[in-house]
Amino acid sequence: MIVLFTDFGLAGPYTGQMKAVLAREAPGVPVIDLFADAPQRDPRRAAYLLAAYAPWFAPGTVFLAVVDPGVGGARKPIIAAADGRQLVGPENGLFAIALRRTACCEVREIAWRPDALSASFHGRDLFAPVAARLARGEPVASAPMPAESALRPDWPDDLAEIVYVDAYGNAMTGLRAATLPRDARLRVGGRTIAPARTFSAVPPGTAFWYGNSCGLAEIAVNLGRADAALGLAIGSAVAVEK
Amino acid sequence: MIVLFTDFGLAGPYTGQMKAVLAREAPGVPVIDLFADAPQRDPRRAAYLLAAYAPWFAPGTVFLAVVDPGVGGARKPIIAAADGRQLVGPENGLFAIALRRTACCEVREIAWRPDALSASFHGRDLFAPVAARLARGEPVASAPMPAESALRPDWPDDLAEIVYVDAYGNAMTGLRAATLPRDARLRVGGRTIAPARTFSAVPPGTAFWYGNSCGLAEIAVNLGRADAALGLAIGSAVAVEK
Amino acid sequence: MIVLFTDFGLAGPYTGQMKAVLAREAPGVPVIDLFADAPQRDPRRAAYLLAAYAPWFAPGTVFLAVVDPGVGGARKPIIAAADGRQLVGPENGLFAIALRRTACCEVREIAWRPDALSASFHGRDLFAPVAARLARGEPVASAPMPAESALRPDWPDDLAEIVYVDAYGNAMTGLRAATLPRDARLRVGGRTIAPARTFSAVPPGTAFWYGNSCGLAEIAVNLGRADAALGLAIGSAVAVEK
Repeated sequence: MIVLFTDFGLAGPYTGQMKAVLAREAPGVPVIDLFADAPQRDPRRAAYLLAAYAPWFAPGTVFLAVVDPGVGGARKPIIAAADGRQLVGPENGLFAIALRRTACCEVREIAWRPDALSASFHGRDLFAPVAARLARGEPVASAPMPAESALRPDWPDDLAEIVYVDAYGNAMTGLRAATLPRDARLRVGGRTIAPARTFSAVPPGTAFWYGNSCGLAEIAVNLGRADAALGLAIGSAVAVEK
Repeated sequence: MIVLFTDFGLAGPYTGQMKAVLAREAPGVPVIDLFADAPQRDPRRAAYLLAAYAPWFAPGTVFLAVVDPGVGGARKPIIAAADGRQLVGPENGLFAIALRRTACCEVREIAWRPDALSASFHGRDLFAPVAARLARGEPVASAPMPAESALRPDWPDDLAEIVYVDAYGNAMTGLRAATLPRDARLRVGGRTIAPARTFSAVPPGTAFWYGNSCGLAEIAVNLGRADAALGLAIGSAVAVEK
Repeated sequence: MIVLFTDFGLAGPYTGQMKAVLAREAPGVPVIDLFADAPQRDPRRAAYLLAAYAPWFAPGTVFLAVVDPGVGGARKPIIAAADGRQLVGPENGLFAIALRRTACCEVREIAWRPDALSASFHGRDLFAPVAARLARGEPVASAPMPAESALRPDWPDDLAEIVYVDAYGNAMTGLRAATLPRDARLRVGGRTIAPARTFSAVPPGTAFWYGNSCGLAEIAVNLGRADAALGLAIGSAVAVEK
């Protein structure tokens, strides 16, 4: 299985062209759209989202992950292996948190280059063919590189910010719920929010936080929009009150 | 074929995670995105949309339909069989209108549970694996339950409201065109609208209603946006003038 | 491979229903979403977008292309063959520019009709079954027609307007970069824009133009939104300063 994680947005030709490459180079391999709207041009916040969602997928999964504002510049194309999953994309920290949370990891610089490489769309021209090859179980020309450079030791283990807002207005933080006290209160958007098990456990219109289905602490309002009610967007600060 | 009908929105990881389950549990079965933007948290209006679109699909189709604001609460997970099609999702009325319009129907409560069931995402953890199993032709542990509870006799046969607005600004009502007099005029957004066969049958900028390609009475403006021109949104009232 | 190019928008049931037809009529053939948000009801501007993106796909590809405001009216359904690729859709100029740029082209009027043809959704009822048949390598009842009528000689070879704005706010013009002097400056949104190789080649916040990954001259801002910064939308005029 190949899983797409990008900031390409829902519209436009980019995801389609990557899928055309995958259909040609890895026919029959399922391709899953996980996020096409990861934090835009923001590998740091996207890294916490990817790290939360990647482990849900089975070992053997290949992630084609492109949040790559430096495309065409100096950043290197890499393959990172983490607990049996492989991540293909730019070396800009996007894989840092996923790698840090795995028992073993390896980072390789991709040496292979396509015959034609556009300056602006390495997702299509370089990363997609590499992901297809890995999904077929075939080797890709690459060289080991120090994992340290991809691990971003200056970034925290969990990020006390909103990293994603979904279509319901629920706001995911970069904090793993399991790292918080069960009864922790979160300070966000000028309000203090208590935990609940799920939506229907609180009255309509009530704000709460809960551990979402991939383990992130998420701010929500039962039958309402947390983003509008609390003024939340990607980057809004969150504080834990113990 | 498995058809997705949800209010998950176009963005975010939810549809992708359900498809990952389907790809693993029912490999090779085509999965079709019908609506990802059914009326949000609104099983009642969504029920009229689903009932209009489901019969277009061939018998044997499995619908994975999740508009489920009560997830994690008391509502039951069900399988409904309607004229050879199977509907999997929550017992909150979402299937009521589709069932009411079929010659024979059967409703079963799903007894099967996954090893890990999140509180907030039964679409991924429970409904998708069940839909996959049905699509493979395999049985799912379940028990018959009274169809009455799923039929919502308090809901009308047709709904005189807007239930969907598409990307062109066309506004679908919950009224089947075939139930209306051919020359009926619809009162909507403070205007009275005459029928036409299709867009190009009226001058540019003219509002009209027509029976859309799945049989719903739909308000449109040739080369314009009916939602903006008439102030329409999901829930706007429609009246039939005979 | 079947490639979808439509103005259906990302939401709603239209793309899903076309894919259901393709899954049934051409099982196993990959279906790629290229654009679902081509310039809406605007075959002229859409024609320049399609012409830029179609040649990237391999010969043998079938394009199911529906920007069809005149559906149900007098325009004919056609199949156009261009350098080994086949285009299926309405005869309203949508294929004009793609055809004009090919060495050889043939245009045929589709004579086949389905048993049930809705007035408003020929994409599902007529064009999708035809595309499926072509993708299977089977003939479709059709008759040659003069290519001239599809070539729109009154339209320019390149269009000095914005024809698409992507999710990053990058604005594609209808001008092929290869037709412009390398150091051409573009006048757009009241500003004069110099060329650059790619995003990371200019400082953050700087507007530039570049030849995008399918050869169109595209207006962008490094780490910013060109549409907002320059007030651009589909239809905005572009002038070339030499």
